[in-house]
Amino acid sequence: MSFISEKFRRLTPYTPGEQPKDRKYIKLNTNESPYPPSEHALTYAAEAAKELMLYSDPQCTKLREALADRYGVDKDCIICGNGSDDILNFAFSAFCDDKTPAVFADITYGFYPVFSEYNRTPYRIIPLKDDFTVCPKEYYNADGTVFIANPNAPTGIALKRCEIEEIIKNNPDNVVVIDEAYVDFGAESCVPLVKKYKNLLVTMTFSKSRSLAGARLGFGIADKSIINDLNTVRYSINPYNVNLMTSAAGIGALEDQKYTDENCKKIIKTRRKTSDSLKKLGFFITDSCANFLFAKHESFGGEYIYEQLRERGVLVRHFNAPRIADFNRITVGSEEQMAALIKALEDITGRKI
Amino acid sequence: MSFISEKFRRLTPYTPGEQPKDRKYIKLNTNESPYPPSEHALTYAAEAAKELMLYSDPQCTKLREALADRYGVDKDCIICGNGSDDILNFAFSAFCDDKTPAVFADITYGFYPVFSEYNRTPYRIIPLKDDFTVCPKEYYNADGTVFIANPNAPTGIALKRCEIEEIIKNNPDNVVVIDEAYVDFGAESCVPLVKKYKNLLVTMTFSKSRSLAGARLGFGIADKSIINDLNTVRYSINPYNVNLMTSAAGIGALEDQKYTDENCKKIIKTRRKTSDSLKKLGFFITDSCANFLFAKHESFGGEYIYEQLRERGVLVRHFNAPRIADFNRITVGSEEQMAALIKALEDITGRKI
Repeated sequence: MSFISEKFRRLTPYTPGEQPKDRKYIKLNTNESPYPPSEHALTYAAEAAKELMLYSDPQCTKLREALADRYGVDKDCIICGNGSDDILNFAFSAFCDDKTPAVFADITYGFYPVFSEYNRTPYRIIPLKDDFTVCPKEYYNADGTVFIANPNAPTGIALKRCEIEEIIKNNPDNVVVIDEAYVDFGAESCVPLVKKYKNLLVTMTFSKSRSLAGARLGFGIADKSIINDLNTVRYSINPYNVNLMTSAAGIGALEDQKYTDENCKKIIKTRRKTSDSLKKLGFFITDSCANFLFAKHESFGGEYIYEQLRERGVLVRHFNAPRIADFNRITVGSEEQMAALIKALEDITGRKI
Repeated sequence: MSFISEKFRRLTPYTPGEQPKDRKYIKLNTNESPYPPSEHALTYAAEAAKELMLYSDPQCTKLREALADRYGVDKDCIICGNGSDDILNFAFSAFCDDKTPAVFADITYGFYPVFSEYNRTPYRIIPLKDDFTVCPKEYYNADGTVFIANPNAPTGIALKRCEIEEIIKNNPDNVVVIDEAYVDFGAESCVPLVKKYKNLLVTMTFSKSRSLAGARLGFGIADKSIINDLNTVRYSINPYNVNLMTSAAGIGALEDQKYTDENCKKIIKTRRKTSDSLKKLGFFITDSCANFLFAKHESFGGEYIYEQLRERGVLVRHFNAPRIADFNRITVGSEEQMAALIKALEDITGRKI
């Protein structure tokens, strides 16, 4: 027996990356940072925890001020959330409906169709080109709310800011959401365009470059009017969506920008080195600007590689989906983790670098 | 210009208790605990924070195990959320629709109508009796999903478990949600009924008795089938709704049950003492089983009392709503805070205890 409303009888929820506990794995399946959070973030979180008997500030004023300072925008152009998923859900809820479908690529963040289904809004798919790149012109006058992950996931491929600007310009009556979860690893951010366009929403997260995945902190930057709309939704679900410790950790991480920058540099360096090794082992790799690589082997199938790696204690993410079933998404971890990955792949492919 | 969907044009979000920063207030307006969180909770949270670069466990396995142990239920009968508001929103979303309205009192938690409006489900109001008590029989065969806060807010008045059991029995085809945010301050919990009734969902929070309002942690206890339905919604919005630090703090608080029990005892004692003082000053008080008092003066209006207290640095919650506009909801704080409240009220009413 189930009491669930008919409207959700066929809802297929999102599947997060697996977190098996049967053994110790090298976790390269959820795009976490291999580097610990900033000490600054930890100190701030611990200090804030002493006041946990009090509710957090529903306006996240101090955190928004720190973000405003970091990104050169007004604090009223910022909304904070429990991960950027929170903000994305608000956007699907606020800006999509029967008349305004969500518009996104066939190969992109797997949560977009789930957000659409959950919010009971139609969506229109624009397939990526054969080389997995986005064709900007196909998004002009999209007649719906556009969602573009940039860099895209799981491909890692990024559009240039000027290309996205044309998409924004050519959708004056609709919101264009640019999901920049992975932007710090080498793509151009669209935040500088927020002042120019009232229909742009940029979402970002502390989960990747700032080593705070477990804290759940994301934010959106847009014109005040868009932020107000998102707040209407936020205050109708959970005004206290960001807890006290996370908010403090976020401020700490922002004050320790140098640490974030250094970690990003290390990951970009490791990405380059791992790409080279994977190519030598017979993998085709997309041109990733993110903290992961998207790799397909010339002889072995994607699921086989995934399973063989798993047996050897290395977890990567395999999507059993059209066009990409032969690929695996591999998080760029530490040098040591990547060495273990390459060693396992040498074993699996029977090749040597 | 606003891009918000027409469906939300008339949505009125929830108004959280004010958090003014213009001066230092004695905060008796959001039902927080006057006592700091358990040291145990803080130690666990700080320890967990070192792993913040990793995502939290979306299943909250360890926390659910600790809760299962505490409440004597199977861990699959538990769902955790970002405050019990999160769970309540899932319930409005999962169990209400055009055919199944939400059913709740006219005077109760102010978020219920907002959750209904946001989830675009109709709701039916059953007015409290003149003395602000719930008439159980009016909820029999309610033909909708029943939401009852027990103890109720802002009145603090509780139903007995046997009265609620009759409501559950007499709604076999619908879910009955008992919101027990304040149950630890003197009401009977319905958790023991979960094993008997497949249509009962009990929601609880760490925000009140466990001094963790700022951590955002709530949970629901119900038959597995109801929990599965709620998880369908959770995994379609934000599977990582509980962060790593909060989850650890929750486990720490549960292991320190003695501390929670002692704080509850202190608050109940202070509530009794404050009640007596308020009565002497000419207030009518409802029979509160919660960590707040609901008080109306025989000579002065509710808004006047609220404003005069505010001027004297004491914040209480005033609801400008039918039937209760002459009341104020006053959180039971520490002995010192209550002494300051009474002193201010002596000044305002011109009376002495």
